[in-house]
Amino acid sequence: MSTGSPVGSHRVVSPAGALPQAADRLDPNPEIAEDEVRISVERLNLDAASYRQLHTSHGGDGEAIRAEVLGIIERRGKMHNPVTGSGGMLIGTVDEVGPRSPLGLKAGQKVATLVSLTLTPLHIDDRLARWDGTSEQVPTSGHAILFGRSIAAVLPDDLPEHLALAVLDVCGAPALVRRVVERRGPDTTVAVLGAAGKSGSLSLAAARDAGAQTVVAVVRDEIEDAQLRGSHLADAIVIADATDPLRLSRKVTEALHGRGADVTVVCVDVPGCEHGAILATAENGTVVFFSMATSFPAAALGAEGLAADVEMLIGNGYVPGHADYALHLLRENRHLKDLFIDRVGKEEA
Amino acid sequence: MSTGSPVGSHRVVSPAGALPQAADRLDPNPEIAEDEVRISVERLNLDAASYRQLHTSHGGDGEAIRAEVLGIIERRGKMHNPVTGSGGMLIGTVDEVGPRSPLGLKAGQKVATLVSLTLTPLHIDDRLARWDGTSEQVPTSGHAILFGRSIAAVLPDDLPEHLALAVLDVCGAPALVRRVVERRGPDTTVAVLGAAGKSGSLSLAAARDAGAQTVVAVVRDEIEDAQLRGSHLADAIVIADATDPLRLSRKVTEALHGRGADVTVVCVDVPGCEHGAILATAENGTVVFFSMATSFPAAALGAEGLAADVEMLIGNGYVPGHADYALHLLRENRHLKDLFIDRVGKEEA
Repeated sequence: MSTGSPVGSHRVVSPAGALPQAADRLDPNPEIAEDEVRISVERLNLDAASYRQLHTSHGGDGEAIRAEVLGIIERRGKMHNPVTGSGGMLIGTVDEVGPRSPLGLKAGQKVATLVSLTLTPLHIDDRLARWDGTSEQVPTSGHAILFGRSIAAVLPDDLPEHLALAVLDVCGAPALVRRVVERRGPDTTVAVLGAAGKSGSLSLAAARDAGAQTVVAVVRDEIEDAQLRGSHLADAIVIADATDPLRLSRKVTEALHGRGADVTVVCVDVPGCEHGAILATAENGTVVFFSMATSFPAAALGAEGLAADVEMLIGNGYVPGHADYALHLLRENRHLKDLFIDRVGKEEA
Repeated sequence: MSTGSPVGSHRVVSPAGALPQAADRLDPNPEIAEDEVRISVERLNLDAASYRQLHTSHGGDGEAIRAEVLGIIERRGKMHNPVTGSGGMLIGTVDEVGPRSPLGLKAGQKVATLVSLTLTPLHIDDRLARWDGTSEQVPTSGHAILFGRSIAAVLPDDLPEHLALAVLDVCGAPALVRRVVERRGPDTTVAVLGAAGKSGSLSLAAARDAGAQTVVAVVRDEIEDAQLRGSHLADAIVIADATDPLRLSRKVTEALHGRGADVTVVCVDVPGCEHGAILATAENGTVVFFSMATSFPAAALGAEGLAADVEMLIGNGYVPGHADYALHLLRENRHLKDLFIDRVGKEEA
């Protein structure tokens, strides 16, 4: 058994010297190095931005979407959407654990990988035959490799698999929101764009949990408004298009009695939300971008162009303890759990 | 005289509802609104990432570069490179000031605009005839418009124009580096990638000025190494390719006696520096991305994939007082000034 690099660089086929996420192609050889873990794959969970792009570019044709995803995996040795640059995560069962793996996993455990599919060596052996291409959730079989410096969470016993997976997929968001709100202290006002979605509703709960003074949920339409009403997750719900900067900032500012939000959290997976988020944020406030559709230059130049003194954070999907914290929020908050079940749990019913 | 929107949305031709930076096309009509300012343009300063892209895509053919820049300005009503999403800045003379302009400018003052060209309405009337396309600096004539919420700096009398412009172009970087280093306190170690460049060398000086314990300059080759040696701007100089993550992080860590940097500043205007910057940063450290070549998903998913608990900031080009601070650093630091003169001041000599 060979010695692997903890960051997986020995699995990179091309280009030389790249890390797995930046690589064009990975080697998904099932033979593991001493610090690796092999997972028997059961389901992929494509990230929202990636699935949306695939769906749009193929006009919703499930067959075509399936063929493209299969082609990407076979060509790249990983599920890395070349247009959005994003991937998703997977669940499966631990198959073999290298003697020097630091991840603490045991064969037979059911796990979700918390590192992106964009850097996870993946081989599919059923040609995605059980997936019709019309959902982000892809039942399949094959194997995936975890490196020494990867992250995986053992799936909890007390929650349905779909539900746990949906929570773990976005668990970096609530952990980072908690950290940012706690750092600012108890008077912090928070606006969450895309508040009815998975990362959005968890961010609402985290902001409340971290002691935010006021939490404003921004949603797209009356349907999402109705989903959130009665959930007690937000102090105010505002319907606004996050890509319409002037209207968005006016509505958030109205909800906060004339001031922008101290912390604005962007969970809307469509391009063009940068300027609205910046304008909706108070001077010296913080914008946290979780959407993979965020444009770096649009954010950097937008803030400069608006003479906006705001801190802008790239939403790092890793914060220590993030999986446990997200599951804790869901268990403790009946309304949040109902919202998730409503959104993703139907297949379990 | 009409009333303008302070953020310039009345100048957007398409798409409706966008802010100027996100717009496809702006209206550079010379007639100003009550809170606008018209500038008589003398020179454009294309940003490094944009010029590099133009230069590469046309194989260094100055004629072709000039034709493309002219085409962009005529089509979009602004100099907004559609590939890089970036622009640059301009200098000129204040021509007319609307009665409600809050910028404090007077007709006849020589100014540099500190908002990006990507959102500045611009009309060129000499077809760029005086520019040969082989430099970022574009002598020209025409007019540009500043909005109520824009920023412009009056050019100082004590510095040559080229020098002041070069400093003002990147003045957001040292101001933000100072803020980040001061927030962390006196034991902070800083690594600057691309340290021999404009924003890089100013970031070195700002880190030192803010009381950093150790400042490491990372440069590309022996030529840049020689430029920085003797400048006293850094405690250590390291030669490494910022797009080679494993080697970069090893060299930075060696220079800091076994630990990553508390603050890593990315000033390298080529794609693919995200993972190296993350790996070179200590746990709980901060990465500040100033390069417009930064990929949002590569940073977000890279940190997650490396299980790296680092804060990642999008380098906001606006921090209050940024222009004065950058000019102050240059005036106070003979070595920094020499480095700038060496780099950009030759045309003045």
